[in-house]
Amino acid sequence: MDEIRIIDVRADILSDNRDQADVIRRDLAARKVFMLNMMASPGAGKTSVIVQTLRRLRGRLRMAVIEGDVETTVDSEKIQAEGFPAVQIRTGGACHLDAPMVSAALEGLDLDGLDLVFIENIGNLICPAEFDTGADLRVMILSVPEGDDKVLKYPLMFSVCDALLVNKIDYLDGSDFNLQALRRRAHELNPRIRIFEVSCKNGAGLEDWCDWLLEIVKQKLS
Amino acid sequence: MDEIRIIDVRADILSDNRDQADVIRRDLAARKVFMLNMMASPGAGKTSVIVQTLRRLRGRLRMAVIEGDVETTVDSEKIQAEGFPAVQIRTGGACHLDAPMVSAALEGLDLDGLDLVFIENIGNLICPAEFDTGADLRVMILSVPEGDDKVLKYPLMFSVCDALLVNKIDYLDGSDFNLQALRRRAHELNPRIRIFEVSCKNGAGLEDWCDWLLEIVKQKLS
Repeated sequence: MDEIRIIDVRADILSDNRDQADVIRRDLAARKVFMLNMMASPGAGKTSVIVQTLRRLRGRLRMAVIEGDVETTVDSEKIQAEGFPAVQIRTGGACHLDAPMVSAALEGLDLDGLDLVFIENIGNLICPAEFDTGADLRVMILSVPEGDDKVLKYPLMFSVCDALLVNKIDYLDGSDFNLQALRRRAHELNPRIRIFEVSCKNGAGLEDWCDWLLEIVKQKLS
Repeated sequence: MDEIRIIDVRADILSDNRDQADVIRRDLAARKVFMLNMMASPGAGKTSVIVQTLRRLRGRLRMAVIEGDVETTVDSEKIQAEGFPAVQIRTGGACHLDAPMVSAALEGLDLDGLDLVFIENIGNLICPAEFDTGADLRVMILSVPEGDDKVLKYPLMFSVCDALLVNKIDYLDGSDFNLQALRRRAHELNPRIRIFEVSCKNGAGLEDWCDWLLEIVKQKLS
């Protein structure tokens, strides 16, 4: 009897997506544009961190944002209100962004006038970790009220990211969030992950994060 | 030329799932078991709300929990530590529970000895809203630190749920979370949704929620 042929739909989808992401990455490198994929749970502070970063790097980098959202355009409006270009991807139900969506969104930006493009992914700790968007850097945000056990529950997300922003650290007082335990678990899973403690409310840690990002972008584009 | 046949994979998947969910619902009704599907973002407090509810309804209902998790069994262990049966569904990457997964989990429970089964869904506000699990009641939790704009961003979740628990209301002080705006938006989208303000930290609102749930379960099973 012949061997049964297994059609692994999920693996094919991910493999096709990766090929398209590689094309995006090569194209952006040729144009000297750096791209960052920002991922987090709903309400962890993705838009706030991007807005705070835009403000601090204004005048030093030319920046734009690709906003992923299931339904609305409210986040794009916040970015445009800061004076930066924004392109909206409305997924209409899909729980993550993929390379073809990002490719289409990039066509809506004047890439020759840009150094850094942020992707704000869909609020979800699961599927966005699986889909390469063509970004050069993957960054996740975990907010203190979500709890320090999230490394155990969403290991893939912590594994694939280059940096982790622990946001809303102004909530640490009186909470049982164990920052040391979080750091230890994250580094066990991903020794190279860079961890920043930040607060978009009081500004803590944002300068360090922006300095680090600026340095990486400059190295890559030089 | 013949009309092109369109194979809408997603619609087929959802339709097959709904059929299986209906079978589960009928089977549970025949056995006088009520099932509740609890959904929320990561870290909104699903396990805490379930634990608090189990404690308050202990002795009045015979209860068990089906725990959905991408990777770990930590939540099941918390339920068993309370002295209640728990069955773990480890999805290995899938971002929601579906009817076949719940059906398999129910086989691991002694249904004749139960009145109420909680399903703790995967932490995600998107796909779990689309997949009927066979539950009689859908309940979502939104925690205050996530922000009051989540109704706009995840409308399907708010539309399909029978009740909304606004959790971590102890965080309201000093936050810009607008409870009135949240209530108005949620009711515009879903006029029948029942909203409870709760805190698992200080116990606020949990009695009201448990009284309401107990009444609904009793009505259904009487």
